Amino acid sequence: MLYDLIIIGGGPAGITAGIYAVRQKLNTLLITKSFGGQVARKAVAIENYPGFEAISGLELIQKFEKQLRKQKVDIERDLVVKIKKIGKKFIVFTESKQQFQSKAVIVASGADPRPLEVLGEKKFIGRGVSYCTVCDQALFGDKTVAVIGGGNAGFEAAIALANYAKKIYILEYAPKVGADQINQERVKKTGKVEVITNAALKQIKGNQFVNSIIYQDRKTKKNITFPLEGVFVEIGSIPATGFVKGLVDFNEKDEIKINPRNNQTKTPGLFAAGDVTEVKQKQIVIAAGEGAKAVLAAYDYLQKQK
Amino acid sequence: MLYDLIIIGGGPAGITAGIYAVRQKLNTLLITKSFGGQVARKAVAIENYPGFEAISGLELIQKFEKQLRKQKVDIERDLVVKIKKIGKKFIVFTESKQQFQSKAVIVASGADPRPLEVLGEKKFIGRGVSYCTVCDQALFGDKTVAVIGGGNAGFEAAIALANYAKKIYILEYAPKVGADQINQERVKKTGKVEVITNAALKQIKGNQFVNSIIYQDRKTKKNITFPLEGVFVEIGSIPATGFVKGLVDFNEKDEIKINPRNNQTKTPGLFAAGDVTEVKQKQIVIAAGEGAKAVLAAYDYLQKQK
Repeated sequence: MLYDLIIIGGGPAGITAGIYAVRQKLNTLLITKSFGGQVARKAVAIENYPGFEAISGLELIQKFEKQLRKQKVDIERDLVVKIKKIGKKFIVFTESKQQFQSKAVIVASGADPRPLEVLGEKKFIGRGVSYCTVCDQALFGDKTVAVIGGGNAGFEAAIALANYAKKIYILEYAPKVGADQINQERVKKTGKVEVITNAALKQIKGNQFVNSIIYQDRKTKKNITFPLEGVFVEIGSIPATGFVKGLVDFNEKDEIKINPRNNQTKTPGLFAAGDVTEVKQKQIVIAAGEGAKAVLAAYDYLQKQK
Repeated sequence: MLYDLIIIGGGPAGITAGIYAVRQKLNTLLITKSFGGQVARKAVAIENYPGFEAISGLELIQKFEKQLRKQKVDIERDLVVKIKKIGKKFIVFTESKQQFQSKAVIVASGADPRPLEVLGEKKFIGRGVSYCTVCDQALFGDKTVAVIGGGNAGFEAAIALANYAKKIYILEYAPKVGADQINQERVKKTGKVEVITNAALKQIKGNQFVNSIIYQDRKTKKNITFPLEGVFVEIGSIPATGFVKGLVDFNEKDEIKINPRNNQTKTPGLFAAGDVTEVKQKQIVIAAGEGAKAVLAAYDYLQKQK
């Protein structure tokens, strides 16, 4: 069977793509190991997806999935491990040794924030540990928080958090921070941020919620404990793109480069949407919009192939 | 009072921008004559906005508006007639002679489909008359419809409708259609489309729903009536951009040109989002995503001004 379109990924971009694809009468297969991507793992309420004043990530993604399943779309619960293009045809290989063929492909496999891999991190996700400042900053009004990572992302997180939090620590593992000078100046201007270098985070502690962290001062080798309410992890992300190497170009963050007007990658017929791409803003509503854009562009591409 | 940000427009792009702006702690004013833009006037259910299997345009926009009003955002019910930039400051002038000032502006004033201005058109909007093929095509399964307009938009609408409708007429006022050759070939391939040139539409008729149209054959001057169930209007749109001339560049459709990565126009600090821009795909979820993107870019811009 030759599909018109295979969509890889079950987060907001992939599901929206699926809804739009079927409405464009594209014979569509969506392949995903699970639905929801990062959204389903968010424990705090989402308040910035238009249409819902406050909704849990899981609930929102269940609504998305239900809406998708009302359409005539094939769904495979599997993990894509490789894509090949032979002539004008794509062959998609999965972990469980299945093969699927299509005329066009949308990669919407998302990205995972790079975890700290320290004690307590997993336990307190959504209970003080956050991987998304824009999403969660408003919860930390007048609280003390740490941002882990002294690059631009960490400094920008600290600047944003300064609108809410009482005190912010930036912890950087290296002897020097990597953020641009301008971000360093802006952080200074907030008057609320303290930068600690040579800091190796060891543990996140708490009861119901985070109440402290332990880090090692790498110069003195001493372990230091201090109380705080939030830990923002800003040490990069890992786009799920291994299976598509060779067919697309990547930026310096391993994100897929696209033409921002039509989500086309460097391989004709191969599109990408959402957090897996270089689109800077990682937000549910933006990923959903990008999924719709990618389908409408894929539709145009398929029309031209006829 | 100097706002950080003024958002112009109360459709999906403007409202989403408002929600995001306040969460970024930008001191924000939203100016709009009414909420909803084109969405509020859609009479048929929306089935392609992720999160809602089927919802009326009015109901969706009321949810958007309610969510916006929960935020600390100033709202002015007024019409913007002019924007000036003096130094780094924007001055926004309104119909009711008010003036507002800000450091950045997002134009999200939308676009209106160009109406036919024939008898019966207004009466049957949402009851057979549609200005959005992607939105409404699925309602016309096995029906006979007309597309008004023989340009690329009209031909593309006919190609899409051929997946659903039984028979499609394209009516073109001029002696020749303006669509690209490739679109003409694709229309031919559907085997379902008849092109009628020199056709001046006179009236759309019906009871509860559209049941016929009358057009004049401009060569013979005869009026011709024929039965059908749907009329798709594809004669272009009118972006609401008069007030921003001089500060932005326009494409050939009078849409505002933007950098697609950050929604920046040619004037620093002036951003645009949604249907008022050259973004090709006019969809609610895409406009909402663009509104969020524009705010996050405006936020970056404002940080750099500090």
